[in-house]
Parts: sequence; structure tokens; C-alpha cells
Amino acid sequence: MSYSTPLLIAAKRDGQELSDAAITWLLEAYDRGDVADEQMSAMLMAIFFRGLGSRELGTWTKAMINSGERLNLRGLSRPTVDKHSTGGVGDKISLILAPLVAACGAAVPQLSGRGLGHTGGTLDKLESIPGWRAALTNDEVYQQLENVGAVICAAGSGLAPVDRRLYALRDVTATVESIPLIASSIMSKKIAEGTDALVLDVKVGRGAFLKDRESSLRLARTMVDLGTSHGVHTVAQLTNMDEPLGRSVGNALEVEESVEVLRGGGPRDVRDLTVALASIMLELVGLDDNPAARLDDGSAYDVYRAMISAQGGDPDAPLARSAHRETIVAPRAGVVQSIDAYRVGVAAWRQGAGRARKEDPVSAGAGVEVLVRRGDHVETGQPLFVLHADDEARLRAGHDEIVGALMIGDEPVVETPLLFERVDATS
Amino acid sequence: MSYSTPLLIAAKRDGQELSDAAITWLLEAYDRGDVADEQMSAMLMAIFFRGLGSRELGTWTKAMINSGERLNLRGLSRPTVDKHSTGGVGDKISLILAPLVAACGAAVPQLSGRGLGHTGGTLDKLESIPGWRAALTNDEVYQQLENVGAVICAAGSGLAPVDRRLYALRDVTATVESIPLIASSIMSKKIAEGTDALVLDVKVGRGAFLKDRESSLRLARTMVDLGTSHGVHTVAQLTNMDEPLGRSVGNALEVEESVEVLRGGGPRDVRDLTVALASIMLELVGLDDNPAARLDDGSAYDVYRAMISAQGGDPDAPLARSAHRETIVAPRAGVVQSIDAYRVGVAAWRQGAGRARKEDPVSAGAGVEVLVRRGDHVETGQPLFVLHADDEARLRAGHDEIVGALMIGDEPVVETPLLFERVDATS
Repeated sequence: MSYSTPLLIAAKRDGQELSDAAITWLLEAYDRGDVADEQMSAMLMAIFFRGLGSRELGTWTKAMINSGERLNLRGLSRPTVDKHSTGGVGDKISLILAPLVAACGAAVPQLSGRGLGHTGGTLDKLESIPGWRAALTNDEVYQQLENVGAVICAAGSGLAPVDRRLYALRDVTATVESIPLIASSIMSKKIAEGTDALVLDVKVGRGAFLKDRESSLRLARTMVDLGTSHGVHTVAQLTNMDEPLGRSVGNALEVEESVEVLRGGGPRDVRDLTVALASIMLELVGLDDNPAARLDDGSAYDVYRAMISAQGGDPDAPLARSAHRETIVAPRAGVVQSIDAYRVGVAAWRQGAGRARKEDPVSAGAGVEVLVRRGDHVETGQPLFVLHADDEARLRAGHDEIVGALMIGDEPVVETPLLFERVDATS
Repeated sequence: MSYSTPLLIAAKRDGQELSDAAITWLLEAYDRGDVADEQMSAMLMAIFFRGLGSRELGTWTKAMINSGERLNLRGLSRPTVDKHSTGGVGDKISLILAPLVAACGAAVPQLSGRGLGHTGGTLDKLESIPGWRAALTNDEVYQQLENVGAVICAAGSGLAPVDRRLYALRDVTATVESIPLIASSIMSKKIAEGTDALVLDVKVGRGAFLKDRESSLRLARTMVDLGTSHGVHTVAQLTNMDEPLGRSVGNALEVEESVEVLRGGGPRDVRDLTVALASIMLELVGLDDNPAARLDDGSAYDVYRAMISAQGGDPDAPLARSAHRETIVAPRAGVVQSIDAYRVGVAAWRQGAGRARKEDPVSAGAGVEVLVRRGDHVETGQPLFVLHADDEARLRAGHDEIVGALMIGDEPVVETPLLFERVDATS
């Protein structure tokens, strides 16, 4: 069966549902090159406006999975469980969570991507560790899961390859911010990765891609349904991303903070969120352990060291530092009303911690230290941020962005929760 | 000034107005190749959903005109006036109208396109005349206007070249049916052509691209405003396209019918519409003549013969005939309730009179003769259509389409008008 691509685009444009056969044909024909990029981008924009129904989205996602290989982790001696975050500022949770959950008895196959835009990528952070390599073969992934219990590596090009092309296309055609397209992109890779269970950390707030609770809930529900229908035990947890997570934003800076938490210390919010997500992951695979205790007794840190070493990294090597720094101080005394995660993320990004194009390099040392928390009382002249960059121009770019990111007022602030709704398959 | 293409697409997608500088940059960058086809098609789809405001559309159209040359016809001894039809089934009006208006004293510079889809193209029709050539240089256009008074030829590649690329892109990305995009495509070429005045025949009904009166009125108003703002005296006339125009649909078949009308005969609706449009054209350039008399006295036919000869055509040469024919007869007696122009157009198209892709050839002889009119009383077995095609397979394709195009009932029908609203610059 063959279709007319313009007629399929017109059907979606006019709000009609596409048949399963038509969707499968479209993605296969795109993969073969019979549907051109300019046709697919028009289809993606039509989907941005018209959406995909749940049957359509299931078929779309399945076609993306079927465009590549699917890992088989069934032979492992431990149950597998992964986590995916929709992306936040200062979100170094994966670096701590993967070894922590492995220390509790599960295997964590975290196949990740790189950062684009104002949120950093897990691989970029780990690459600030001398010697560490992101690229593993499927066999290496399997062996490391069996031997260490945790692996964080680059998703191989064999997993959902059509998603890779679609993602690059969406990035240049302003079709990223579509819930069905976000959901199918994330879930196709996670399902192809072969995990038994999955926790989705869906960020909500100023620093998240989706700023509002309603869109985030819709994305969470969409992804949980997709995972469940493909046999992956999936739960989504909405979490607060108004303020940056922890005290550091940037690649090496976040690795350092992660190690602090893995050694039982570190910022309270990072530790609390990691433990909360670990608890859900253990619940999903039926393991009964105490993640907080595994941070305090050093066993999570041991797994972390083994995980880094297994991929060629030296966990004891000193990390890169940027040569240029600037301390931003409080212009007045008062109570910190808010710290805008988005602006902090953009500042770190412009200082060199992130990339504007996918071929750009990132700076290991660049970033922002956030010295105060929302609700803290500060004095005039008290340091609020330390900016790190490799040159003066980037330092200035970060400075221009960070000004106004932190609001000081006179009123006390009400503490906001770290966790919002949880979305289960059965809820 | 340079812009981020994804941010411009996102702005339009989210319903924002684009600045004049941004629109000009976008079209220039597309012309240079700095904006990719996949980005432009996403922008076109965003425009399909969000539209263009009148300032945006004016700037968009001006940028398309500025992408190429603009003919200068000011030196001619006669006033110039052109007509454009949005496309109908059996619409051979241009073939009659251009020489008729020239016979009345104006110069008609009709730079045309080819047919795509269910409506035929004027150039395709004229190319069924042996020897006739569509391609003229700008100098040849000018000389023929001066000497003969009428020219129908292919719009040179120098006029609004960006429109050519955009049109090809819209055709494969389901972004044709957008009022601002239709309006800017038509008007950029007509303004670049250098005519003093322009009558737009905006078709409404089953056989038109826009089926409803409201969209057609919006398109008419949009084009009249665009022409007026560029100094072209522009009027739009909405006309009925529920039934096919005249008795023949197809290239050589329509040339034959045009000659009948040029000799003072032919179907009443074709003659009436031609005379009505000619009257408006003459009014716009301040000429006071009687177009009906110029059909009856043979002077319009004389100009037609000179126009065809000037482009290498032999007005006396026999025209191509298709070898395969089929007569469709009435299955019952009664009154013809309706003849669906769209289905007749698609039948002729599938029989070979039109093209599915722009590189396809068309058949000169293929088409449909429509032997009865709406409101006629027919007997069982009375011939309704004669189908013409170059082979049996195409004849069958037309047959499958024509079945059900004509409805016979028992009620008398109320005559519908040929002309609807007229839209003037001042109205």
C-alpha cells in the first residue's frame, strides 16, 4: 500500500485521524527517503496544531521503535529500571540515581542524550571526567549492567534511528514543543532500550520546557500510557523546576555536587529528589531497600566509582576549572523571593556549559554556582552567584543573563513542594 | 540584520505578527538558500493555521516581487489590463477575453501558468494548436502587445522567482489552500508583469479551489487590497463554478469552443461571462466599447488569429483528437438537477487533459464534452457526456469519475446566477 504524502499532510492539517497503515507507511517512507524533509516538517507542524490521538501516537511510536534495533536485557540477573527527566536546570540526578538504584539491587540501563538549549545533558556532565567515554557497544552495555549494575552511556545510533532524524528536523523547524512528538521521541528510545520499568521525572515550572502544570500532566499521562502499552512498567512523577536543583549548574560543577550527595552530603533538594525517585524505581521492580541508607553507607558511591572506571574514567582525577570567575552580590538586604531557573540555565549555557547547535563543543568548567536558596535572608553585598567561564566574553554573556534572575523582597516566602502529582498506569 | 529561522517560525506558530524586516529577511534568505526548504514548509504550515495580517502580507508580496524583475509596459500606446482566474472547470475565458479586449482598444499582457490538479491551464490549452509556443522574451511580449494588443504566454522565470519555488514547495506539503499564500502568489506575478489594471475572476463553488462564498470573498478582498496598494487598479468579480463552464473540458476541445465564441456563437454562459469580464476590464482603463459587438463583427476573432500566428501557431490547423471515446447516457428521464464541476474536472484530468505532477505531459485531445445543462429535461438513454482519451485505461479512469457527476430528478430547478459579488478597491 502506498500513500500520497501531500494528501496525508492535508488530512492531518484538516484535523482528520490518520490510519495505522498510513502512519507506518509515512515513517517507513521517510526512513527510506521517499518522504522529503520538507514534507515531514509540514506534517510535524500540522501535528503541532492538530495533535495525535492515542491510537495514532501508539502507532507512530511503534514505527519509530521498529526503525531500529531493540536491546534484549532479559538475560540479566537483576531487574532493569531506568529514569528519564524531561530536563531541568542543575538536574544532575541521573549521576547519583543510577549507581544508587544499582546499589539497591536493580540494573539501570541509562541510555542518554546530549544537552541542547538551556538544560545540560547527562553525557556532557560525565565527559568532564578525564578518560570517561560515552560510546559503548550493546555488548559492553550488557556486561556493565551485569557486572556493575549501572551504565550511563550514549544511546547508540541503532535505537529508533528515525527519531534521531525527526529530532534534528524538529529542532530547526520550531516543532519541538508538541506533546505527542516529545512523548514519542522519549518513549521510542526508552522502549527500544529494553528496560522493564521506567520512572519519568516530568519537570514543571520556569526552568522546564513545559512551564505549566496542565501541559506537564498531559505529557506525563501520554508517556505513561505509551510505556504501559508497550509492556514497560511506567510511572511519571511531576517535580518542581521553578528554581535550579542544588547549588551548581554546569558540567564539572555538577559532577562535584553529585559526588557530595553520593558521599552522604550535598544539597538537601538534590538528595531528597534522588531518594524519592529511587524509591519509585525500586517499588516498580519489587525491591525493598532504603536508598537514603545506601547514600550514607557509601555503597552508592562505590557503584558510582565502578561505573565511571568501567567506562575509562578516573573518579579521582581533578576536574576542569574555568579560568574566569565573577561573584554576583546582593544589591540590598532581604529575603530571596525567587531564583529563576530558566535564566540561571541560560546564563550557564551562554557561559559555555551548553551548546547552541548540536555540533558545538561544551566547556567542562563553565557554569554557575548558586550560593543561596529561595527563602534565605541575605545582607547587602552578600555573594549570590559565582559565574565560571573560559573567557571574558562568555563571562559577560552570563552576567547579562543572571542579572534579574534572583528577586529579593521583604516578605517571607512559603516553601514550595519538590514533588507534585504522580501519574500511574492505573490512575 | 540576521534572524534565527526557528524563532521566526515559532513566533508565527504562536500567533505573533512578524516584523517587515523579519519577513524580508526570511524570503531573501530563502532565495539565497540560507533558509532550508524544510524550514520554509514549516513556516508555510504555520501561516496556514495563523494567517498573515495585511501589513505582513503586503511585505511578503513585495519581497516576492523584489526577488525578480518587473516588466515596464508604460511605453505602450494603449492602456494595459489583465485578467486572472482562480481556476475553474472548462474555464477557457482567457482565450476569448484577451483578443476581445484588445479588439476593444486595450493591451492585454496575460502571463500565465500551467494547470495542476483538476483545473486546466491556459497554456496547456493553447499548446494544442500546432506550432504555438508559450515562451516569449520580454521584448517579444512588448512588441506583440504593441502590434497585436494581446499576448498569452508563459510567465518568464524572471518574474517573482521566489514564488516559483514556494509554489512547488506548497504543492508537495499541503500548504496550497491558504488565502494569504494564494493571494501573494497570484498578485506578486501580476504586479511584476506591469499591468495598469487587473480583473480577478474569483471562482466559487464545487469546481473551484475555494468552495464557499465567505472564503472566496476574503480571497477577493485580500487580492484587491494587495493590487491597489501596489498601484494596480484591481477589481474582483466572484463567479459561479458549481457547474462546468460551457460544453467542453479539455485542451483542444476548449480551443474549439473558444473559437466558436470568438465567431459570435458558442455556449451562452461562456459568452456572457466573457462579455461581463471584458466590460469591467474596459471600465478600469476608461475605454468605452461594446464587447458583444466585437464578438459578433469578427474583430475579436481577427485579433485571436493574429495573436496565435504571432507565437508561431496555425489558427487553421486541425486540432488533435483522442482515439478512444465513450458516450455516457441518462439512466432515467427527468430534469438535470446538477452537474458537479469538480467531478467533471477530475474525470478530464484523469483522462489525460491535466497533470498530476508538474513534469507530466498533457494530452491535447483528451477531455469531456458536456452535452446537457443544468435544468434540461432528458430522456432515458439520452447522451449526457462524451469522454475522450488516448487509451482505454484512461477512458475507464474518466468513466469511474464521471458516474454520479450528473444528478437527474423530477423537480424543476431554479436558475442560478453566473455572477456573484464584485469587490472594488473602494467598497
